[in-house]
Amino acid sequence: MSLINDNYLELEQRYLFAEVAARVSAFSEKNPEASIIRMGIGDVTQPLVPAVIQAMHKAVEECAHSETFRGYGPEPGYDFLRQAIVDNDYAGLGIKASEVFVSDGAKSDTGNIGDIFSANNVIGITDPVYPVYVDTNTMTGREIVLIPCNPGNGFTGDIPDRKLDIIYLCYPNNPTGAVITRDKLKAWVDYALANHSIIFYDAAYEAFIRDPLIPHSIYEIEGAKQCAIEFRSFSKTAGFTGIRCAFTVVPEQLTALSAQRKEISLNHLWDRRQSCKFNGASYISQRGAEAVYSPEGREQVKAVIDGYLDTASVIRNSLQKAGLNPTGGENSPYIWAQTPAGMPSWDFFDLLLERAGVVITPGAGFGQGGEGYFRVTAFNTKDKSLQAMEKLTELVKSL
Amino acid sequence: MSLINDNYLELEQRYLFAEVAARVSAFSEKNPEASIIRMGIGDVTQPLVPAVIQAMHKAVEECAHSETFRGYGPEPGYDFLRQAIVDNDYAGLGIKASEVFVSDGAKSDTGNIGDIFSANNVIGITDPVYPVYVDTNTMTGREIVLIPCNPGNGFTGDIPDRKLDIIYLCYPNNPTGAVITRDKLKAWVDYALANHSIIFYDAAYEAFIRDPLIPHSIYEIEGAKQCAIEFRSFSKTAGFTGIRCAFTVVPEQLTALSAQRKEISLNHLWDRRQSCKFNGASYISQRGAEAVYSPEGREQVKAVIDGYLDTASVIRNSLQKAGLNPTGGENSPYIWAQTPAGMPSWDFFDLLLERAGVVITPGAGFGQGGEGYFRVTAFNTKDKSLQAMEKLTELVKSL
Repeated sequence: MSLINDNYLELEQRYLFAEVAARVSAFSEKNPEASIIRMGIGDVTQPLVPAVIQAMHKAVEECAHSETFRGYGPEPGYDFLRQAIVDNDYAGLGIKASEVFVSDGAKSDTGNIGDIFSANNVIGITDPVYPVYVDTNTMTGREIVLIPCNPGNGFTGDIPDRKLDIIYLCYPNNPTGAVITRDKLKAWVDYALANHSIIFYDAAYEAFIRDPLIPHSIYEIEGAKQCAIEFRSFSKTAGFTGIRCAFTVVPEQLTALSAQRKEISLNHLWDRRQSCKFNGASYISQRGAEAVYSPEGREQVKAVIDGYLDTASVIRNSLQKAGLNPTGGENSPYIWAQTPAGMPSWDFFDLLLERAGVVITPGAGFGQGGEGYFRVTAFNTKDKSLQAMEKLTELVKSL
Repeated sequence: MSLINDNYLELEQRYLFAEVAARVSAFSEKNPEASIIRMGIGDVTQPLVPAVIQAMHKAVEECAHSETFRGYGPEPGYDFLRQAIVDNDYAGLGIKASEVFVSDGAKSDTGNIGDIFSANNVIGITDPVYPVYVDTNTMTGREIVLIPCNPGNGFTGDIPDRKLDIIYLCYPNNPTGAVITRDKLKAWVDYALANHSIIFYDAAYEAFIRDPLIPHSIYEIEGAKQCAIEFRSFSKTAGFTGIRCAFTVVPEQLTALSAQRKEISLNHLWDRRQSCKFNGASYISQRGAEAVYSPEGREQVKAVIDGYLDTASVIRNSLQKAGLNPTGGENSPYIWAQTPAGMPSWDFFDLLLERAGVVITPGAGFGQGGEGYFRVTAFNTKDKSLQAMEKLTELVKSL
């Protein structure tokens, strides 16, 4: 008699973005003529850059000939990519290629990383938050402690006064667009070292950082290699949301305890997990990712992100003028703003969709700390984003 | 204080094929001049067929232009691929597109599927077996019952006289190359229905079936939609080991019980798992997979598999002549044979590598039931395979 994992019954019936999509599609069916501007899901819209396209065509062509065909790759990724990551993203930080695990996405990695940890860990999650952290820990039945993020602490959470075993941090933040200073990140690292905790550092948006004072990697902070796993992705950096390539850094000196209080290497456990339950990212995607680090690739990708940042700035200014107190949108593709007059965020979502044809993401979808807020993304074109902001401003004025 | 998942300490230190690779690489280092013929890992060697290459070039090109660029796809796969799978692989079997979940690989799926089931299920695993089934359940701490497979039961196991909650079946089998008859598969389905068990049916090698009496899908058996999940892959069907695309079928009527003995839809749970911990297979891979079902694609792919089957037949005949009682190699790319004079299989592996430069996979790597056997794959070229069989035969004669 087979039994399900009962923890799944504790989940919301629908994943946040599935719920958003369902409401948009119900609206479209009822209003087939209505034009809709999507500022909701964090998906890129600009095409892949020429350096990546060229590399992927070449990789496809290699697969057409016996002499250059490649079958299974190494589960943790090809050396050409692991080395390019180390040389470019971690120059001077002492990260080794053997500490980099290439995968098909940061969503997979931030979800699957829980496999190597006990269900008994107490998890600290900043609130509001990307729902995957909460959902994947709910699926395992772990105790979750929410760490409130608000304007008072710059949306970076107060250092807890209780012991948490694992803490998720994401900066530049999804959904709030907040960045973290070096000092504040050091305070988190010091907390983790003092408590033998692990920080899961999601740096999926680091490519949007332009301020030289903001850290790109947690390993810029002393001691982080003893307490942190870092997640990165080519999705937002280089428009790979449909191509699927990301990576996770697990330093070799990083350990957690067994039930018998023995220090166990997490690099080894993650390698074992990935070797057993994963077969490597697509060769074509890995060659595309490698090209992101070529001189042309770097320049082309930077230009695309500059464009998104320009749009983000336009959105932030519009929301400021509309009196909705936006944060984010600098060093980040996300802008976080207050709903008009504290309206519940799903109500504002429905109203904005019905009256203006604009899709945002309601803050409550990111947890209780998101109630009264909404998230706007800068991934649509500048023109469409401007149009959407005009419609939104008009609606807000009319309320 | 963060704690690891202690179940990981129960695993073998190295995944089987990592161990094989390590021994081969140690040998190569000591004997840089030695030529090595690899008949070990089940990886394809023939390039991708023209229909697939063309489709992937086209998909790469689409990503280069705003009008055709695609970002995140639907987590369970694009409709164009789900529908092609249903129309071709499940014609007449009443499987719907909503029951097909496209992924990056059958290794991921057969590993991750455990997430939606309780750790308290008792797992039946045929022995010898693909090590991932054992390892992934060991990682969750589940009780595993081995179901002996031997020449007496045609390597298809005897129907158990105790209740097992979940049973893994893989036919055509890895590693034994055995196929299962419709009657025997019906006996397994009847057992599962009687015990409210779930069968995980791994049909990754179904494209090698040429005998019209052998079932390709478990859903050819009445009642299977109430008790089975089927896994398939483009890896062996179409040489996608480096491209990464596979799928899992979870029928909508399939249920398992909650702790409160409520029937819960597994299709819904798997959808929830995949939406939360996965972001879809690469668009380029999915377009490549779609092309496998085009008229040219089908013909081209069949020709490649015919080639592998021809090689399999040559290997089987050689092993027969060498007196090693092979099975498999018909309707399957794997040949399973006895080590000479019952030699322990890792000893035979080392001997064959050192004295003949031929790499096979030792049976013991697939579990205790594999001791005294070894697996040969038909994925190398016919020429190399013939050479390897000559060297092996010579060595066996000399013992």
